[in-house]
Amino acid sequence: MTEKARLTADKIRKLEVQGARNVAIAALKALETMAHETKTNTRESFFKELSEAKTILFEARETEPLMRNAVKWIINRVEDSDERSVETLATLVTSSSRSFQKKLEGSIELIAEIGARRIRDGMVILTHCHSSTLTRLLTKAKKTGKNFEVICTETRPALQGRITAREMIELGIKTTMIIDSAARSFMNVADMIFVGADALTSEGNVINKIGTSSIALLAYESRTPFYVVSELLKFDPTTLCGDYEIIEERSPLEIWAEAPENLIIRNPAFDVTRREYIHGIICEEGIIPPDSVVEVMNRRYPWVFH
Amino acid sequence: MTEKARLTADKIRKLEVQGARNVAIAALKALETMAHETKTNTRESFFKELSEAKTILFEARETEPLMRNAVKWIINRVEDSDERSVETLATLVTSSSRSFQKKLEGSIELIAEIGARRIRDGMVILTHCHSSTLTRLLTKAKKTGKNFEVICTETRPALQGRITAREMIELGIKTTMIIDSAARSFMNVADMIFVGADALTSEGNVINKIGTSSIALLAYESRTPFYVVSELLKFDPTTLCGDYEIIEERSPLEIWAEAPENLIIRNPAFDVTRREYIHGIICEEGIIPPDSVVEVMNRRYPWVFH
Amino acid sequence: MTEKARLTADKIRKLEVQGARNVAIAALKALETMAHETKTNTRESFFKELSEAKTILFEARETEPLMRNAVKWIINRVEDSDERSVETLATLVTSSSRSFQKKLEGSIELIAEIGARRIRDGMVILTHCHSSTLTRLLTKAKKTGKNFEVICTETRPALQGRITAREMIELGIKTTMIIDSAARSFMNVADMIFVGADALTSEGNVINKIGTSSIALLAYESRTPFYVVSELLKFDPTTLCGDYEIIEERSPLEIWAEAPENLIIRNPAFDVTRREYIHGIICEEGIIPPDSVVEVMNRRYPWVFH
Amino acid sequence: MTEKARLTADKIRKLEVQGARNVAIAALKALETMAHETKTNTRESFFKELSEAKTILFEARETEPLMRNAVKWIINRVEDSDERSVETLATLVTSSSRSFQKKLEGSIELIAEIGARRIRDGMVILTHCHSSTLTRLLTKAKKTGKNFEVICTETRPALQGRITAREMIELGIKTTMIIDSAARSFMNVADMIFVGADALTSEGNVINKIGTSSIALLAYESRTPFYVVSELLKFDPTTLCGDYEIIEERSPLEIWAEAPENLIIRNPAFDVTRREYIHGIICEEGIIPPDSVVEVMNRRYPWVFH
Amino acid sequence: MTEKARLTADKIRKLEVQGARNVAIAALKALETMAHETKTNTRESFFKELSEAKTILFEARETEPLMRNAVKWIINRVEDSDERSVETLATLVTSSSRSFQKKLEGSIELIAEIGARRIRDGMVILTHCHSSTLTRLLTKAKKTGKNFEVICTETRPALQGRITAREMIELGIKTTMIIDSAARSFMNVADMIFVGADALTSEGNVINKIGTSSIALLAYESRTPFYVVSELLKFDPTTLCGDYEIIEERSPLEIWAEAPENLIIRNPAFDVTRREYIHGIICEEGIIPPDSVVEVMNRRYPWVFH
Amino acid sequence: MTEKARLTADKIRKLEVQGARNVAIAALKALETMAHETKTNTRESFFKELSEAKTILFEARETEPLMRNAVKWIINRVEDSDERSVETLATLVTSSSRSFQKKLEGSIELIAEIGARRIRDGMVILTHCHSSTLTRLLTKAKKTGKNFEVICTETRPALQGRITAREMIELGIKTTMIIDSAARSFMNVADMIFVGADALTSEGNVINKIGTSSIALLAYESRTPFYVVSELLKFDPTTLCGDYEIIEERSPLEIWAEAPENLIIRNPAFDVTRREYIHGIICEEGIIPPDSVVEVMNRRYPWVFH
Repeated sequence: MTEKARLTADKIRKLEVQGARNVAIAALKALETMAHETKTNTRESFFKELSEAKTILFEARETEPLMRNAVKWIINRVEDSDERSVETLATLVTSSSRSFQKKLEGSIELIAEIGARRIRDGMVILTHCHSSTLTRLLTKAKKTGKNFEVICTETRPALQGRITAREMIELGIKTTMIIDSAARSFMNVADMIFVGADALTSEGNVINKIGTSSIALLAYESRTPFYVVSELLKFDPTTLCGDYEIIEERSPLEIWAEAPENLIIRNPAFDVTRREYIHGIICEEGIIPPDSVVEVMNRRYPWVFH
Repeated sequence: MTEKARLTADKIRKLEVQGARNVAIAALKALETMAHETKTNTRESFFKELSEAKTILFEARETEPLMRNAVKWIINRVEDSDERSVETLATLVTSSSRSFQKKLEGSIELIAEIGARRIRDGMVILTHCHSSTLTRLLTKAKKTGKNFEVICTETRPALQGRITAREMIELGIKTTMIIDSAARSFMNVADMIFVGADALTSEGNVINKIGTSSIALLAYESRTPFYVVSELLKFDPTTLCGDYEIIEERSPLEIWAEAPENLIIRNPAFDVTRREYIHGIICEEGIIPPDSVVEVMNRRYPWVFH
Repeated sequence: MTEKARLTADKIRKLEVQGARNVAIAALKALETMAHETKTNTRESFFKELSEAKTILFEARETEPLMRNAVKWIINRVEDSDERSVETLATLVTSSSRSFQKKLEGSIELIAEIGARRIRDGMVILTHCHSSTLTRLLTKAKKTGKNFEVICTETRPALQGRITAREMIELGIKTTMIIDSAARSFMNVADMIFVGADALTSEGNVINKIGTSSIALLAYESRTPFYVVSELLKFDPTTLCGDYEIIEERSPLEIWAEAPENLIIRNPAFDVTRREYIHGIICEEGIIPPDSVVEVMNRRYPWVFH
Repeated sequence: MTEKARLTADKIRKLEVQGARNVAIAALKALETMAHETKTNTRESFFKELSEAKTILFEARETEPLMRNAVKWIINRVEDSDERSVETLATLVTSSSRSFQKKLEGSIELIAEIGARRIRDGMVILTHCHSSTLTRLLTKAKKTGKNFEVICTETRPALQGRITAREMIELGIKTTMIIDSAARSFMNVADMIFVGADALTSEGNVINKIGTSSIALLAYESRTPFYVVSELLKFDPTTLCGDYEIIEERSPLEIWAEAPENLIIRNPAFDVTRREYIHGIICEEGIIPPDSVVEVMNRRYPWVFH
Repeated sequence: MTEKARLTADKIRKLEVQGARNVAIAALKALETMAHETKTNTRESFFKELSEAKTILFEARETEPLMRNAVKWIINRVEDSDERSVETLATLVTSSSRSFQKKLEGSIELIAEIGARRIRDGMVILTHCHSSTLTRLLTKAKKTGKNFEVICTETRPALQGRITAREMIELGIKTTMIIDSAARSFMNVADMIFVGADALTSEGNVINKIGTSSIALLAYESRTPFYVVSELLKFDPTTLCGDYEIIEERSPLEIWAEAPENLIIRNPAFDVTRREYIHGIICEEGIIPPDSVVEVMNRRYPWVFH
Repeated sequence: MTEKARLTADKIRKLEVQGARNVAIAALKALETMAHETKTNTRESFFKELSEAKTILFEARETEPLMRNAVKWIINRVEDSDERSVETLATLVTSSSRSFQKKLEGSIELIAEIGARRIRDGMVILTHCHSSTLTRLLTKAKKTGKNFEVICTETRPALQGRITAREMIELGIKTTMIIDSAARSFMNVADMIFVGADALTSEGNVINKIGTSSIALLAYESRTPFYVVSELLKFDPTTLCGDYEIIEERSPLEIWAEAPENLIIRNPAFDVTRREYIHGIICEEGIIPPDSVVEVMNRRYPWVFH
């Protein structure tokens, strides 16, 4: 009965489901479905199935800490109960999943509010790639009457910058698009940089779309504040244990479909931005220095470490 | 009879003729043709035509110091003669033009030799965009038995990195292509950076394809030597006089053909790399620090300043 | 009966009461007076008055987190009690206020002790503006037999450096005064920089007298340790929520009384020193990196966040 | 009966016992012996003796926070008991000491595991001086099949780099030795730097063998990750209180035995590496930014501060 | 008959004559007067008087290379002639002096033209202190229709920023004044920095009003172009020979007239801006990197070195 | 008859003759001897012998530009003459050699004078390795009454710092010796760094004893001026042509005579200090920025390039 998990994992792998938050929610929904459609009738076999589903989902993509933390949290919660009835356990999966999604939604709303206060009238915000949390933040700022412009990079190879551009245009925000390489030429025009995150590490570094770390360096070179907008649950606890955040490498076809024979094409999807280039992380705790992520996680989400 | 100049200027404008050296040669050939097909028969009207041709060619593109210096040199040479016969003057145009091209060819060959010596066996060279002088250098290095690899960025929006990649593959060099944004992820793999130049300025800065200055900063961040490969005649003397090197802005369609309405697309073709990020300029004088370009020009090509 | 609060607020506004600590104490005393002279006789109306007083005091000056935290703490404590007698509540205001002041005094004494240990015989300490906590620290160091010199900037426009200079001279410390612009020329003479703070932010940055951030940069340029001496209760919790610490802009007359017509004069009173330029914050917790201020606040003063 | 403490202190002073961990264990064993051989028979006199032993051991060497924390912990534990029988108290000394050593051993094993995961096949690790914890880490990495090389500096004046080199050779690791001054020439060959620590300070700085801070700066210059490998109990709580970590200065004879008369020889044994040059501290908590050491200590080992 | 030289030297010393150019012209005029009023009647005694006058003028102020170079040039020119008639020699003094002043005027006009081209519509230019050459440049820019704003520091202690402010206001330029310490707060508002110079050194460094080097560092921190506007004849040839440019220290009374007893007041008038912080020197040669000053001097003014 | 050249080359190779200047003089003396003892009697065979001698001497050591430039200069001078008598040619070798040595001596004396002026009373000068030119400079400073201290590194592996230390002690200068790794700990004590040079390159970089580039970086980190003291004839013209200055690698036995089997020992003798870390080069031209070395060579010693 782990078929649903398998289907979801497939969609995640093929990028039919995209974005850390969408991926996490899809995984939770797969768990819910699975729990209610299961044919097992013992607590033991139920947990065995959950565990298999977890493995399948975790293998869908290498850098998905939010999804992993979400799945882990649900299973922990269910395991904490002493219930033996599979039906009751299934209900617990659903209620835990709903509760998680509600909290996540609350975090994102809070992040949007906090970040929107950083924006001042007349500012030019430069951003890279697409982040639904960041779009929420900019929407909030616009709705509260802030008057600002946005510059977005196109974000090769998958051009997610176009999604951001469309969203900004629809919000009625004056928006400029540039190629990724042109970021330095617009750095003194930009007043602030906002980017999302795919993962936060124990060293205080941030994993985000390839190109982010260059933009952070450019911002540092010109004293332009650089903020990462992210739910804290994107923290990856395995980084504390010495594991590297694995950088997914995607198909060469995304870059050059008819490349000449023998040409090697390297297509890493993410890069690492060092904490020293980050002014602050805008998260549900507030605006914090990247160095304190581990401590804040210990205070707010100690279960992540177990 | 300035029609030929007009035709050539058009081709340059439409990028049918590309690359600083090709553009310069096309302009010289236009002058040659024009001089031989002219219908004027006085020295005065001949020079009037030359002067008009110069204006037309100069207006073809804003950042073309090599072409401008070439045209200026030919006209200076012809003006220096006391000849009054239009036929003789036309012959002088041709011989000066040939002489200039020969010297240019000599410079490029010398640059290739000098630069090839910088390459050591086992090195990984990272490059950006396409430069015929740099290709000559890498060809020379390969032909003299140096064993090295090349990483080339794709160079959005016009993807000239693909030209470089094809040339490298044809030379039998192990070649890797990456997107522009991935340069930082490969900076510690690269042992040296080589880029071409569109213009050299009196401050020692270099104008080259958009994205060059970011790569220079990344190289500086990781102590990777960054060299500019360029004929000295790409020096623009107007920069000495306070003029900015004008950064051409090309069509938004190059970036996004079906962009949503209201989206502003900015497409500067070049950027400025500050001298402090440049290890050396590999030119016909040898490998020199960028700060000394003005002095070397004064010693080698004093006519450029007049 | 909020008249006392209004009078105090006026004095703060006109700088008749100056310095974060003096302002906080004046506000507490206003609350004490008000509580005892009130004519209300219900708990509800008593708290209404307290709340009005708080608003009045908060509006006196924009950057006064110590005063705000102090007032908030007193009111919280009184609200926590179930008492309904106004007289008893008034007594509680007084006892809480006394207790706060005693703790503050304890913090300052502790900071002085900790900071004094950082000073070694023969050192030259450079400072900017005036801070009563820092004077306490230097007094402590002098009294414990440390032999050191002080360089103080004059601190335009209000010349508070002269207050520091007088205090140092009175302590018998060899003291040199320089203009603010000369700090770089004396940076290699100075062994350590000590400055006070007006506010600490969640990002680990420090708000202090205009000019502080330049001195921090100069210290960083020459590898001279730069310490901020501050009670932790100068932390502003609203910065965590995305609010900017508001930089007060004072009268142009302070800079040029008879300025020519049409000349714009800008007179910001504070600036922001980034955490990366700060060696440590000397506070009642000890010497800590600026990045950990939020976590230390959460451990020591969690009520600040509510 | 503090003779054993005195003997141990002597051995420590003469470097017959070396390395933070060995020194700590020797001190604990001295306490154990002393407790069991004491002739006192009252709780009061027993504690008096313990206290004297502590003083003697603390004076053996100035920079030994691990030993100091160990001794402090044992004595605290014994004092916490209400026992009055000297025999029982002596047993408590032993059991506490064993327990401490076991935990220390556990920490080191955990650090080795965590750090080993940071090593990737093909890496070149550069190290300075000798650290038994680091050797454990590299042994673990080698045993788990990681394929890597080591470069070790010789580490003048006492040449502890030779100990590291021998250990690496014995593990079958390809090892290169260089003089300390050559580190910059090999920095672009190295993929990562690992060093041990003698003490951690409240500012997040690390005290280690002289030369460490230069290597950290070189690593920073070339964007090479620099990690400190250390048990958290090397944290020195007095640094929080403003005390400087005292830098031991050793005999000039170590540098030049037959130096000419009048030549001053300075021989500091350690230096201070600023937190900004440190990528992370690999400790029993995991890999953490150096800024968070104080907070982690407060969470894990709060007794250290009392 | 060196009385005139003595009077002029006095005026220079008392700052009755101010600014490098005014001082140079005053010295030349003193030489002219002296030459025409002399009572000597032999070539030898005439040159003896000239030499005495030179000594007197040189001693008037320590950092006046323009005046020194001017006086040296005049005397060299007169010495080169074989004339023995004192009257003719006196005429030669006058004609040389006039010729020098004319050339100087030509240089300044050229600098103004070159520098004005650097200014683009909409720019905000930040400047420090007062420089007549810079005022000429800004006047030229304004007159040629450029639309820009100016921020000027007040420039303690002598407040020469007020002179600049008045001149800008009179030109109808939107002008803002700030205290020196506020420069960092306005650095991201400024698009370019322009300062004058008192002396140029062989290392490519610039001596200018105290505070200039801090502003250069701030500009560097935020990638804001920093230009020095100066006649090349402010080059001091003794710096090539190892002499330090002497930094004049002025009266403490300028800083605090009623300072408390025992307070040391240090009042250096200039500081040194390192070449690495300077984008370019705008001089009569054009815009050049500071490193090439010695070579340009060798080419244009070789007599300066003899 | 090239035996003398061979003997001299051997001594150079075995370090029996050491130091750039001694090596150059030894090579010149070998040429002199050879010229006078030759048995050839035709101009052609004489030049053939000279040419063989040149080859032998050049192969003695890889990084010896001063010797190479010296030999080249002598041979050029002799070749320029039309003489056919071997005896006369031999005399010309001697006179040219004497003339070269005299000029070299003049350069060194001039460098000493110029550099000595940079030293101010009370300064602490830090130096690395040994340089006879630098010793001359410090001797000159001491003799002209300057009062200063010297810190010298021991300079592993060959400990040439001890030679410097002995020379300083003999001059009566207060001298401190440290290990190479301790340089950072004394960087804020040092007021200036002086080092010699083995070779100057066209990029403006300096080749000197291993460890020099680290010290330059440390000086840069702490804003301590770093000067290179060198005759310009140490410039290596092949660097202009793209050749790398070859870094000699010396015997592992110098580092560890009884190293364990399998241990690789790398012992490069020199490293490269980038121009950006060098305040100035103190040479016979004066104090110049490193960027201008090529231009100064073109002006003073154009024959070097042919």
